[in-house]
Amino acid sequence: MTRIEQHASFGGRQEVWQHASAALACPMRFAVYLPPAAVRGEPCPVLYWLSGLTCTEQNFIAKAGAQAHAARYGLILVAPDTSPRGEAVADDPAYDLGQGAGFYLNATQAPWAAHYRMQDYVADELPALVEQHFPALPVRAIAGHSMGGHGALVTALRHPGRYRSVSAFSPIVAPGQVPWGQKAFAAYLGQDPDAWAQWDAVALLRAAPERLPILVDQGLDDEFLAGQLRPELLEAACREAGHPLTLRRQAGYDHSYYFIASFIGDHIAHHAAALKAD
Amino acid sequence: MTRIEQHASFGGRQEVWQHASAALACPMRFAVYLPPAAVRGEPCPVLYWLSGLTCTEQNFIAKAGAQAHAARYGLILVAPDTSPRGEAVADDPAYDLGQGAGFYLNATQAPWAAHYRMQDYVADELPALVEQHFPALPVRAIAGHSMGGHGALVTALRHPGRYRSVSAFSPIVAPGQVPWGQKAFAAYLGQDPDAWAQWDAVALLRAAPERLPILVDQGLDDEFLAGQLRPELLEAACREAGHPLTLRRQAGYDHSYYFIASFIGDHIAHHAAALKAD
Repeated sequence: MTRIEQHASFGGRQEVWQHASAALACPMRFAVYLPPAAVRGEPCPVLYWLSGLTCTEQNFIAKAGAQAHAARYGLILVAPDTSPRGEAVADDPAYDLGQGAGFYLNATQAPWAAHYRMQDYVADELPALVEQHFPALPVRAIAGHSMGGHGALVTALRHPGRYRSVSAFSPIVAPGQVPWGQKAFAAYLGQDPDAWAQWDAVALLRAAPERLPILVDQGLDDEFLAGQLRPELLEAACREAGHPLTLRRQAGYDHSYYFIASFIGDHIAHHAAALKAD
Repeated sequence: MTRIEQHASFGGRQEVWQHASAALACPMRFAVYLPPAAVRGEPCPVLYWLSGLTCTEQNFIAKAGAQAHAARYGLILVAPDTSPRGEAVADDPAYDLGQGAGFYLNATQAPWAAHYRMQDYVADELPALVEQHFPALPVRAIAGHSMGGHGALVTALRHPGRYRSVSAFSPIVAPGQVPWGQKAFAAYLGQDPDAWAQWDAVALLRAAPERLPILVDQGLDDEFLAGQLRPELLEAACREAGHPLTLRRQAGYDHSYYFIASFIGDHIAHHAAALKAD
Protein backbone atom coordinates (compact mmCIF):
# COMPACT_ATOMS: atom_id res chain seq x y z
CA MET A 1 0.00 0.00 0.00
CA THR A 2 1.50 3.32 -1.09
CA ARG A 3 0.62 6.81 0.03
CA ILE A 4 0.42 9.07 -3.02
CA GLU A 5 -0.93 12.27 -1.42
CA GLN A 6 -0.79 13.86 2.01
CA HIS A 7 -2.09 17.29 3.00
CA ALA A 8 -2.62 18.84 6.40
CA SER A 9 -6.33 19.70 6.71
CA PHE A 10 -8.20 21.15 9.69
CA GLY A 11 -5.57 19.91 12.11
CA GLY A 12 -5.72 16.40 10.64
CA ARG A 13 -4.48 14.84 7.41
CA GLN A 14 -6.09 14.26 4.03
CA GLU A 15 -4.34 11.31 2.42
CA VAL A 16 -4.73 9.29 -0.79
CA TRP A 17 -3.47 5.70 -0.96
CA GLN A 18 -2.99 3.16 -3.73
CA HIS A 19 -3.09 -0.60 -3.24
CA ALA A 20 -3.61 -3.82 -5.18
CA SER A 21 -7.24 -4.80 -4.70
CA ALA A 22 -7.93 -8.54 -4.48
CA ALA A 23 -11.68 -8.10 -4.98
CA LEU A 24 -11.28 -5.97 -8.09
CA ALA A 25 -8.06 -7.52 -9.44
CA CYS A 26 -6.54 -4.12 -10.23
CA PRO A 27 -4.73 -1.24 -8.49
CA MET A 28 -7.16 1.02 -6.63
CA ARG A 29 -6.94 4.43 -5.00
CA PHE A 30 -8.89 5.59 -2.00
CA ALA A 31 -8.88 8.76 0.08
CA VAL A 32 -8.65 8.81 3.88
CA TYR A 33 -9.19 11.84 6.07
CA LEU A 34 -7.66 11.37 9.51
CA PRO A 35 -9.08 13.84 12.03
CA PRO A 36 -6.76 15.33 14.68
CA ALA A 37 -7.78 12.59 17.13
CA ALA A 38 -6.67 9.86 14.69
CA VAL A 39 -3.41 11.71 13.99
CA ARG A 40 -2.78 11.57 17.74
CA GLY A 41 -3.32 7.80 17.51
CA GLU A 42 -6.76 7.63 19.11
CA PRO A 43 -9.00 4.99 17.48
CA CYS A 44 -11.87 6.68 15.64
CA PRO A 45 -15.04 5.44 13.92
CA VAL A 46 -15.20 5.57 10.13
CA LEU A 47 -17.66 7.12 7.70
CA TYR A 48 -17.45 5.59 4.20
CA TRP A 49 -18.43 7.90 1.34
CA LEU A 50 -19.46 6.54 -2.06
CA SER A 51 -19.34 9.00 -4.96
CA GLY A 52 -21.47 9.32 -8.06
CA LEU A 53 -21.05 8.66 -11.77
CA THR A 54 -17.75 9.85 -13.33
CA CYS A 55 -16.16 10.58 -9.95
CA THR A 56 -12.91 9.26 -8.52
CA GLU A 57 -11.64 9.34 -4.94
CA GLN A 58 -10.84 13.04 -5.53
CA ASN A 59 -14.24 14.73 -5.91
CA PHE A 60 -15.51 14.34 -2.37
CA ILE A 61 -12.26 15.31 -0.67
CA ALA A 62 -11.75 18.41 -2.82
CA LYS A 63 -15.30 19.76 -2.99
CA ALA A 64 -17.54 18.63 -0.11
CA GLY A 65 -15.91 20.51 2.75
CA ALA A 66 -16.39 17.43 4.93
CA GLN A 67 -13.04 17.59 6.70
CA ALA A 68 -14.06 20.52 8.91
CA HIS A 69 -16.91 18.47 10.34
CA ALA A 70 -15.00 15.20 10.57
CA ALA A 71 -12.25 17.02 12.48
CA ARG A 72 -14.78 18.39 14.96
CA TYR A 73 -16.48 15.04 15.60
CA GLY A 74 -13.40 12.83 15.41
CA LEU A 75 -14.52 10.73 12.44
CA ILE A 76 -12.27 9.13 9.84
CA LEU A 77 -13.61 9.63 6.29
CA VAL A 78 -12.88 7.04 3.61
CA ALA A 79 -13.75 7.72 -0.04
CA PRO A 80 -13.01 4.97 -2.59
CA ASP A 81 -12.97 5.29 -6.36
CA THR A 82 -16.25 4.50 -8.17
CA SER A 83 -15.11 1.42 -10.13
CA PRO A 84 -12.13 -0.73 -10.99
CA ARG A 85 -9.73 1.09 -13.32
CA GLY A 86 -7.00 0.45 -15.85
CA GLU A 87 -6.37 -0.75 -19.39
CA ALA A 88 -7.04 -4.37 -18.42
CA VAL A 89 -10.47 -3.47 -17.03
CA ALA A 90 -13.57 -3.59 -19.27
CA ASP A 91 -14.96 -0.17 -20.12
CA ASP A 92 -17.61 1.56 -22.18
CA PRO A 93 -17.41 4.98 -23.85
CA ALA A 94 -20.58 6.16 -22.05
CA TYR A 95 -20.18 8.02 -18.76
CA ASP A 96 -22.81 5.82 -17.08
CA LEU A 97 -21.34 2.36 -17.71
CA GLY A 98 -17.95 0.81 -17.04
CA GLN A 99 -15.07 2.74 -15.46
CA GLY A 100 -16.41 5.50 -13.22
CA ALA A 101 -19.81 3.75 -13.05
CA GLY A 102 -19.40 0.58 -10.99
CA PHE A 103 -22.77 0.93 -9.20
CA TYR A 104 -21.29 -0.71 -6.07
CA LEU A 105 -22.49 -4.20 -7.05
CA ASN A 106 -20.88 -7.51 -7.96
CA ALA A 107 -21.26 -8.06 -11.70
CA THR A 108 -22.10 -11.52 -13.00
CA GLN A 109 -21.99 -10.93 -16.76
CA ALA A 110 -19.09 -10.88 -19.23
CA PRO A 111 -17.00 -8.83 -19.74
CA TRP A 112 -17.76 -7.07 -16.42
CA ALA A 113 -17.61 -9.98 -13.95
CA ALA A 114 -13.82 -10.21 -14.06
CA HIS A 115 -13.25 -6.92 -12.22
CA TYR A 116 -16.54 -5.25 -11.30
CA ARG A 117 -16.98 -6.48 -7.72
CA MET A 118 -17.36 -3.09 -6.06
CA GLN A 119 -19.72 -4.43 -3.37
CA ASP A 120 -17.09 -6.86 -2.11
CA TYR A 121 -14.58 -4.03 -2.25
CA VAL A 122 -16.52 -1.38 -0.34
CA ALA A 123 -18.23 -3.69 2.15
CA ASP A 124 -15.38 -6.12 2.91
CA GLU A 125 -11.92 -5.48 1.47
CA LEU A 126 -11.71 -1.75 2.05
CA PRO A 127 -12.95 -1.73 5.68
CA ALA A 128 -10.55 -4.57 6.52
CA LEU A 129 -7.68 -2.61 4.98
CA VAL A 130 -8.67 0.62 6.73
CA GLU A 131 -9.06 -1.08 10.10
CA GLN A 132 -5.65 -2.71 9.69
CA HIS A 133 -3.62 0.32 8.56
CA PHE A 134 -5.22 3.30 10.33
CA PRO A 135 -6.34 3.99 13.91
CA ALA A 136 -9.87 2.96 12.87
CA LEU A 137 -12.44 1.34 15.09
CA PRO A 138 -14.65 -1.35 13.52
CA VAL A 139 -17.50 1.13 13.96
CA ARG A 140 -18.82 2.18 10.58
CA ALA A 141 -21.26 4.47 8.84
CA ILE A 142 -21.92 4.83 5.14
CA ALA A 143 -23.11 7.66 2.91
CA GLY A 144 -22.98 8.67 -0.71
CA HIS A 145 -24.24 10.79 -3.59
CA SER A 146 -26.40 9.80 -6.57
CA MET A 147 -25.01 6.42 -7.77
CA GLY A 148 -23.12 6.45 -4.47
CA GLY A 149 -26.31 7.16 -2.56
CA HIS A 150 -27.69 4.01 -4.14
CA GLY A 151 -24.46 2.29 -3.13
CA ALA A 152 -24.72 3.45 0.48
CA LEU A 153 -28.37 2.39 0.86
CA VAL A 154 -27.86 -1.01 -0.78
CA THR A 155 -24.63 -1.76 1.06
CA ALA A 156 -26.21 -0.97 4.43
CA LEU A 157 -29.37 -2.95 3.61
CA ARG A 158 -27.35 -5.99 2.46
CA HIS A 159 -25.18 -6.03 5.59
CA PRO A 160 -27.34 -5.75 8.69
CA GLY A 161 -25.24 -5.02 11.75
CA ARG A 162 -22.26 -3.74 9.80
CA TYR A 163 -23.10 -0.02 9.82
CA ARG A 164 -24.37 2.18 12.62
CA SER A 165 -25.95 4.71 10.27
CA VAL A 166 -26.63 5.46 6.62
CA SER A 167 -27.40 8.61 4.64
CA ALA A 168 -27.52 9.79 1.07
CA PHE A 169 -27.61 12.88 -1.09
CA SER A 170 -29.77 12.67 -4.24
CA PRO A 171 -29.64 8.86 -4.31
CA ILE A 172 -30.79 6.57 -7.10
CA VAL A 173 -33.30 4.78 -4.88
CA ALA A 174 -34.83 2.34 -7.37
CA PRO A 175 -32.27 1.54 -10.08
CA GLY A 176 -34.51 -1.12 -11.57
CA GLN A 177 -37.10 1.55 -12.41
CA VAL A 178 -34.90 4.30 -13.94
CA PRO A 179 -32.73 4.54 -17.08
CA TRP A 180 -29.29 4.80 -15.39
CA GLY A 181 -29.94 1.71 -13.29
CA GLN A 182 -31.68 -0.29 -16.01
CA LYS A 183 -28.77 0.21 -18.38
CA ALA A 184 -26.12 -0.66 -15.80
CA PHE A 185 -28.02 -3.61 -14.31
CA ALA A 186 -28.71 -5.14 -17.75
CA ALA A 187 -24.99 -5.00 -18.51
CA TYR A 188 -23.64 -6.07 -15.13
CA LEU A 189 -26.37 -8.50 -14.01
CA GLY A 190 -28.20 -9.65 -17.13
CA GLN A 191 -32.00 -9.75 -17.36
CA ASP A 192 -32.97 -11.77 -14.25
CA PRO A 193 -35.37 -9.62 -12.16
CA ASP A 194 -34.41 -11.47 -8.98
CA ALA A 195 -30.78 -10.49 -9.52
CA TRP A 196 -31.78 -6.86 -9.98
CA ALA A 197 -33.86 -6.87 -6.79
CA GLN A 198 -30.79 -7.75 -4.73
CA TRP A 199 -29.19 -4.41 -5.66
CA ASP A 200 -32.22 -2.14 -5.46
CA ALA A 201 -32.82 -0.20 -2.24
CA VAL A 202 -36.57 0.05 -2.70
CA ALA A 203 -36.79 -3.72 -3.32
CA LEU A 204 -34.44 -4.62 -0.45
CA LEU A 205 -36.30 -2.41 2.03
CA ARG A 206 -39.39 -4.58 1.97
CA ALA A 207 -37.72 -7.45 3.79
CA ALA A 208 -34.86 -5.65 5.54
CA PRO A 209 -33.95 -7.47 8.78
CA GLU A 210 -32.57 -4.23 10.26
CA ARG A 211 -34.42 -0.92 10.38
CA LEU A 212 -31.48 1.51 10.33
CA PRO A 213 -32.89 5.06 10.08
CA ILE A 214 -32.18 6.58 6.66
CA LEU A 215 -31.38 10.27 6.18
CA VAL A 216 -31.75 11.60 2.63
CA ASP A 217 -31.31 15.11 1.27
CA GLN A 218 -32.69 15.79 -2.20
CA GLY A 219 -32.48 19.08 -4.09
CA LEU A 220 -35.71 20.11 -5.78
CA ASP A 221 -33.87 21.79 -8.70
CA ASP A 222 -31.90 18.60 -9.36
CA GLU A 223 -31.94 17.95 -13.12
CA PHE A 224 -32.11 14.18 -12.48
CA LEU A 225 -34.90 14.29 -9.89
CA ALA A 226 -37.87 13.10 -11.95
CA GLY A 227 -36.02 10.87 -14.41
CA GLN A 228 -33.38 9.03 -12.38
CA LEU A 229 -33.74 9.65 -8.64
CA ARG A 230 -37.47 9.51 -7.76
CA PRO A 231 -37.27 9.82 -3.98
CA GLU A 232 -41.03 9.31 -3.76
CA LEU A 233 -40.39 5.61 -4.46
CA LEU A 234 -38.15 5.41 -1.39
CA GLU A 235 -40.70 7.31 0.64
CA ALA A 236 -43.47 4.88 -0.34
CA ALA A 237 -41.31 1.80 0.27
CA CYS A 238 -40.29 3.05 3.72
CA ARG A 239 -43.89 3.82 4.58
CA GLU A 240 -45.03 0.35 3.54
CA ALA A 241 -42.21 -1.41 5.34
CA GLY A 242 -42.30 0.74 8.45
CA HIS A 243 -38.71 1.74 7.79
CA PRO A 244 -37.60 5.02 9.44
CA LEU A 245 -36.78 7.69 6.86
CA THR A 246 -35.98 11.39 7.08
CA LEU A 247 -36.32 12.72 3.54
CA ARG A 248 -35.54 16.42 3.26
CA ARG A 249 -36.55 18.12 0.02
CA GLN A 250 -34.32 21.16 -0.32
CA ALA A 251 -35.80 23.96 -2.43
CA GLY A 252 -33.48 25.48 -5.03
CA TYR A 253 -30.64 22.94 -4.74
CA ASP A 254 -29.24 21.02 -7.71
CA HIS A 255 -27.23 17.79 -8.12
CA SER A 256 -23.80 19.37 -7.60
CA TYR A 257 -21.22 19.36 -4.83
CA TYR A 258 -22.46 22.85 -3.89
CA PHE A 259 -25.56 21.03 -2.62
CA ILE A 260 -23.52 18.39 -0.80
CA ALA A 261 -21.27 21.01 0.81
CA SER A 262 -24.32 22.91 2.07
CA PHE A 263 -25.66 19.94 4.06
CA ILE A 264 -22.70 17.61 4.67
CA GLY A 265 -22.38 19.05 8.17
CA ASP A 266 -25.88 17.78 9.01
CA HIS A 267 -25.03 14.34 7.65
CA ILE A 268 -21.78 14.11 9.56
CA ALA A 269 -23.54 15.18 12.75
CA HIS A 270 -26.15 12.45 12.09
CA HIS A 271 -23.44 9.82 11.66
CA ALA A 272 -21.41 11.08 14.62
CA ALA A 273 -24.41 10.70 16.91
CA ALA A 274 -24.79 7.04 15.86
CA LEU A 275 -21.06 6.26 15.80
CA LYS A 276 -20.31 7.81 19.17
CA ALA A 277 -23.32 6.26 20.94
CA ASP A 278 -22.47 3.51 23.42
CA MET B 1 -23.29 40.05 -19.16
CA THR B 2 -24.41 36.40 -19.22
CA ARG B 3 -24.90 34.03 -16.31
CA ILE B 4 -23.35 30.67 -17.18
CA GLU B 5 -23.68 28.87 -13.83
CA GLN B 6 -26.02 29.07 -10.87
CA HIS B 7 -26.09 26.75 -7.86
CA ALA B 8 -27.87 27.08 -4.54
CA SER B 9 -25.21 27.08 -1.81
CA PHE B 10 -25.64 27.51 1.95
CA GLY B 11 -28.94 29.30 1.48
CA GLY B 12 -27.41 31.69 -1.06
CA ARG B 13 -26.31 31.33 -4.68
CA GLN B 14 -22.99 30.52 -6.30
CA GLU B 15 -23.00 32.04 -9.77
CA VAL B 16 -20.52 32.36 -12.65
CA TRP B 17 -20.86 35.20 -15.17
CA GLN B 18 -19.24 36.04 -18.49
CA HIS B 19 -18.86 39.55 -19.86
CA ALA B 20 -16.82 41.53 -22.38
CA SER B 21 -14.01 43.19 -20.43
CA ALA B 22 -12.99 46.64 -21.64
CA ALA B 23 -9.75 46.64 -19.61
CA LEU B 24 -8.62 43.26 -20.95
CA ALA B 25 -10.21 43.47 -24.42
CA CYS B 26 -11.53 39.90 -24.23
CA PRO B 27 -14.42 37.91 -22.76
CA MET B 28 -13.91 37.20 -19.05
CA ARG B 29 -15.55 34.96 -16.49
CA PHE B 30 -15.90 35.68 -12.81
CA ALA B 31 -17.60 33.87 -9.94
CA VAL B 32 -19.97 35.59 -7.49
CA TYR B 33 -21.28 34.07 -4.28
CA LEU B 34 -24.41 35.84 -3.06
CA PRO B 35 -25.11 35.11 0.61
CA PRO B 36 -28.73 34.68 1.75
CA ALA B 37 -28.87 38.37 2.70
CA ALA B 38 -27.93 39.42 -0.85
CA VAL B 39 -30.43 36.96 -2.33
CA ARG B 40 -33.06 38.74 -0.22
CA GLY B 41 -31.91 41.98 -1.85
CA GLU B 42 -30.03 43.43 1.13
CA PRO B 43 -26.87 45.32 0.07
CA CYS B 44 -23.77 43.45 1.27
CA PRO B 45 -20.05 44.24 1.36
CA VAL B 46 -17.77 42.38 -1.04
CA LEU B 47 -14.63 40.29 -0.56
CA TYR B 48 -12.56 39.94 -3.74
CA TRP B 49 -10.50 36.76 -4.01
CA LEU B 50 -7.50 36.51 -6.37
CA SER B 51 -6.35 32.99 -7.23
CA GLY B 52 -2.90 31.61 -7.94
CA LEU B 53 -1.00 30.38 -11.00
CA THR B 54 -2.96 28.09 -13.38
CA CYS B 55 -6.29 28.78 -11.66
CA THR B 56 -9.52 30.06 -13.19
CA GLU B 57 -12.60 31.47 -11.47
CA GLN B 58 -13.49 27.85 -10.58
CA ASN B 59 -10.82 26.76 -8.10
CA PHE B 60 -11.76 28.95 -5.17
CA ILE B 61 -15.50 28.39 -5.45
CA ALA B 62 -15.18 24.60 -5.71
CA LYS B 63 -12.44 23.93 -3.17
CA ALA B 64 -12.11 26.61 -0.49
CA GLY B 65 -15.35 26.05 1.39
CA ALA B 66 -15.72 29.82 1.69
CA GLN B 67 -19.45 29.98 1.03
CA ALA B 68 -20.38 28.63 4.48
CA HIS B 69 -18.57 31.54 6.12
CA ALA B 70 -19.72 34.19 3.65
CA ALA B 71 -23.31 33.06 4.20
CA ARG B 72 -22.92 33.41 7.96
CA TYR B 73 -21.38 36.91 7.80
CA GLY B 74 -23.40 38.24 4.87
CA LEU B 75 -20.47 38.88 2.53
CA ILE B 76 -20.53 38.67 -1.25
CA LEU B 77 -17.50 36.79 -2.63
CA VAL B 78 -16.12 37.67 -6.08
CA ALA B 79 -13.45 35.52 -7.71
CA PRO B 80 -12.15 36.60 -11.14
CA ASP B 81 -10.06 34.55 -13.55
CA THR B 82 -6.27 34.92 -13.27
CA SER B 83 -5.56 36.49 -16.67
CA PRO B 84 -7.12 37.50 -19.96
CA ARG B 85 -8.02 34.44 -22.06
CA GLY B 86 -8.64 33.38 -25.63
CA GLU B 87 -6.95 32.66 -28.92
CA ALA B 88 -6.38 36.37 -29.59
CA VAL B 89 -4.56 36.80 -26.26
CA ALA B 90 -0.77 36.35 -26.04
CA ASP B 91 0.29 33.19 -24.23
CA ASP B 92 3.32 31.13 -23.28
CA PRO B 93 3.57 27.36 -22.93
CA ALA B 94 4.91 27.68 -19.36
CA TYR B 95 2.40 27.55 -16.50
CA ASP B 96 3.91 30.65 -14.89
CA LEU B 97 3.64 33.13 -17.78
CA GLY B 98 0.77 34.26 -20.00
CA GLN B 99 -2.74 32.86 -19.66
CA GLY B 100 -3.40 31.73 -16.09
CA ALA B 101 -0.49 33.86 -14.86
CA GLY B 102 -1.48 37.51 -15.19
CA PHE B 103 0.14 38.58 -11.89
CA TYR B 104 -2.58 41.23 -11.41
CA LEU B 105 -0.49 44.01 -13.00
CA ASN B 106 -0.75 46.21 -16.09
CA ALA B 107 1.79 44.99 -18.65
CA THR B 108 3.77 47.54 -20.64
CA GLN B 109 5.73 45.25 -22.96
CA ALA B 110 4.80 43.57 -26.25
CA PRO B 111 3.08 41.22 -26.84
CA TRP B 112 1.52 41.39 -23.38
CA ALA B 113 0.45 45.02 -23.12
CA ALA B 114 -2.50 44.57 -25.51
CA HIS B 115 -4.52 42.46 -23.03
CA TYR B 116 -2.68 41.97 -19.75
CA ARG B 117 -4.19 44.79 -17.66
CA MET B 118 -5.39 42.68 -14.75
CA GLN B 119 -4.82 45.48 -12.23
CA ASP B 120 -7.25 47.77 -14.02
CA TYR B 121 -9.64 44.83 -14.22
CA VAL B 122 -9.60 43.74 -10.58
CA ALA B 123 -9.28 47.19 -9.00
CA ASP B 124 -11.62 49.18 -11.26
CA GLU B 125 -13.66 47.41 -13.92
CA LEU B 126 -14.77 44.39 -11.90
CA PRO B 127 -15.87 46.28 -8.75
CA ALA B 128 -17.82 48.75 -10.88
CA LEU B 129 -19.56 45.87 -12.64
CA VAL B 130 -20.28 44.05 -9.39
CA GLU B 131 -21.62 47.16 -7.69
CA GLN B 132 -23.87 47.84 -10.68
CA HIS B 133 -25.33 44.36 -11.19
CA PHE B 134 -25.54 42.84 -7.70
CA PRO B 135 -26.80 44.10 -4.32
CA ALA B 136 -23.21 45.06 -3.47
CA LEU B 137 -22.15 47.93 -1.27
CA PRO B 138 -19.04 49.89 -2.32
CA VAL B 139 -17.40 48.40 0.77
CA ARG B 140 -14.57 46.11 -0.26
CA ALA B 141 -11.98 43.71 1.05
CA ILE B 142 -9.38 41.76 -0.91
CA ALA B 143 -7.59 38.46 -0.39
CA GLY B 144 -5.77 35.87 -2.44
CA HIS B 145 -3.47 32.88 -2.67
CA SER B 146 0.12 32.68 -3.90
CA MET B 147 0.26 34.84 -7.07
CA GLY B 148 -3.18 36.05 -5.93
CA GLY B 149 -1.80 36.83 -2.48
CA HIS B 150 0.72 39.07 -4.22
CA GLY B 151 -2.19 40.51 -6.20
CA ALA B 152 -4.24 41.23 -3.09
CA LEU B 153 -1.36 42.91 -1.23
CA VAL B 154 -0.28 45.01 -4.22
CA THR B 155 -3.82 46.02 -5.19
CA ALA B 156 -4.60 47.15 -1.63
CA LEU B 157 -1.28 49.00 -1.31
CA ARG B 158 -1.74 50.79 -4.65
CA HIS B 159 -5.29 51.94 -3.81
CA PRO B 160 -5.36 53.49 -0.35
CA GLY B 161 -8.93 53.94 0.85
CA ARG B 162 -10.41 51.45 -1.58
CA TYR B 163 -10.34 48.35 0.65
CA ARG B 164 -11.28 47.96 4.28
CA SER B 165 -9.05 44.92 4.81
CA VAL B 166 -6.53 42.67 3.08
CA SER B 167 -5.29 39.13 3.66
CA ALA B 168 -3.32 36.45 1.88
CA PHE B 169 -2.52 32.76 1.93
CA SER B 170 1.05 31.82 0.94
CA PRO B 171 1.60 35.08 -0.96
CA ILE B 172 4.48 35.94 -3.25
CA VAL B 173 5.51 38.95 -1.16
CA ALA B 174 8.55 40.15 -3.10
CA PRO B 175 8.18 39.15 -6.75
CA GLY B 176 11.26 41.15 -7.71
CA GLN B 177 13.39 38.85 -5.55
CA VAL B 178 12.08 35.38 -6.55
CA PRO B 179 12.07 33.37 -9.81
CA TRP B 180 8.30 33.39 -10.51
CA GLY B 181 8.13 37.16 -10.17
CA GLN B 182 11.40 37.90 -11.94
CA LYS B 183 10.34 35.87 -14.97
CA ALA B 184 6.86 37.43 -15.17
CA PHE B 185 8.01 40.99 -14.45
CA ALA B 186 10.77 40.83 -17.08
CA ALA B 187 8.19 39.73 -19.66
CA TYR B 188 5.35 42.05 -18.66
CA LEU B 189 7.31 45.13 -17.48
CA GLY B 190 10.75 44.95 -19.08
CA GLN B 191 13.93 45.54 -17.10
CA ASP B 192 13.26 48.89 -15.38
CA PRO B 193 13.67 48.39 -11.59
CA ASP B 194 11.35 51.32 -10.86
CA ALA B 195 8.58 49.65 -12.86
CA TRP B 196 9.07 46.43 -10.88
CA ALA B 197 8.92 48.27 -7.55
CA GLN B 198 5.41 49.50 -8.34
CA TRP B 199 4.14 45.91 -8.34
CA ASP B 200 6.09 44.51 -5.40
CA ALA B 201 4.41 44.43 -1.98
CA VAL B 202 7.65 44.61 -0.02
CA ALA B 203 8.80 47.62 -2.08
CA LEU B 204 5.40 49.37 -1.91
CA LEU B 205 5.11 48.90 1.86
CA ARG B 206 7.99 51.25 2.56
CA ALA B 207 6.06 54.34 1.51
CA ALA B 208 2.47 53.14 1.89
CA PRO B 209 0.18 56.09 2.70
CA GLU B 210 -2.30 53.76 4.41
CA ARG B 211 -1.43 51.22 7.11
CA LEU B 212 -4.14 48.61 6.51
CA PRO B 213 -3.43 45.65 8.80
CA ILE B 214 -2.28 42.59 6.82
CA LEU B 215 -3.25 39.02 7.76
CA VAL B 216 -1.11 36.28 6.21
CA ASP B 217 -1.25 32.51 6.67
CA GLN B 218 1.74 30.53 5.45
CA GLY B 219 2.13 26.74 5.59
CA LEU B 220 5.51 25.58 6.79
CA ASP B 221 5.44 22.47 4.55
CA ASP B 222 4.74 24.61 1.48
CA GLU B 223 7.04 23.43 -1.32
CA PHE B 224 7.41 27.03 -2.56
CA LEU B 225 8.15 28.59 0.83
CA ALA B 226 11.91 29.16 0.60
CA GLY B 227 12.19 29.64 -3.17
CA GLN B 228 9.20 31.75 -4.17
CA LEU B 229 7.25 33.03 -1.17
CA ARG B 230 9.77 34.15 1.51
CA PRO B 231 7.38 35.62 4.08
CA GLU B 232 10.36 36.78 6.15
CA LEU B 233 10.84 39.56 3.58
CA LEU B 234 7.31 40.80 4.26
CA GLU B 235 7.89 40.51 7.98
CA ALA B 236 11.08 42.60 7.79
CA ALA B 237 9.49 45.22 5.52
CA CYS B 238 6.49 45.59 7.84
CA ARG B 239 8.76 45.89 10.86
CA GLU B 240 10.84 48.62 9.17
CA ALA B 241 7.80 50.53 7.94
CA GLY B 242 5.76 50.14 11.10
CA HIS B 243 3.08 48.37 9.07
CA PRO B 244 0.72 46.11 11.07
CA LEU B 245 1.12 42.46 10.09
CA THR B 246 -0.24 39.22 11.52
CA LEU B 247 1.85 36.46 9.96
CA ARG B 248 0.79 32.99 11.06
CA ARG B 249 3.20 30.17 10.25
CA GLN B 250 1.10 26.99 10.15
CA ALA B 251 3.06 23.82 10.90
CA GLY B 252 2.43 20.92 8.51
CA TYR B 253 0.39 22.79 5.90
CA ASP B 254 1.27 22.86 2.20
CA HIS B 255 0.40 25.14 -0.74
CA SER B 256 -2.90 23.45 -1.60
CA TYR B 257 -6.57 24.35 -1.21
CA TYR B 258 -6.66 21.94 1.76
CA PHE B 259 -4.61 24.64 3.53
CA ILE B 260 -6.87 27.46 2.35
CA ALA B 261 -10.02 25.57 3.37
CA SER B 262 -8.59 25.00 6.85
CA PHE B 263 -8.18 28.72 7.57
CA ILE B 264 -10.54 30.56 5.20
CA GLY B 265 -13.01 30.90 8.07
CA ASP B 266 -10.49 32.96 10.03
CA HIS B 267 -9.85 35.18 7.02
CA ILE B 268 -13.51 35.75 6.32
CA ALA B 269 -14.10 36.59 9.99
CA HIS B 270 -11.18 39.07 9.76
CA HIS B 271 -12.69 40.72 6.70
CA ALA B 272 -16.23 40.68 8.09
CA ALA B 273 -15.05 42.57 11.19
CA ALA B 274 -13.57 45.32 8.99
CA LEU B 275 -16.40 45.37 6.45
CA LYS B 276 -19.18 45.48 9.02
CA ALA B 277 -17.53 48.15 11.21
CA ASP B 278 -19.17 51.59 11.07
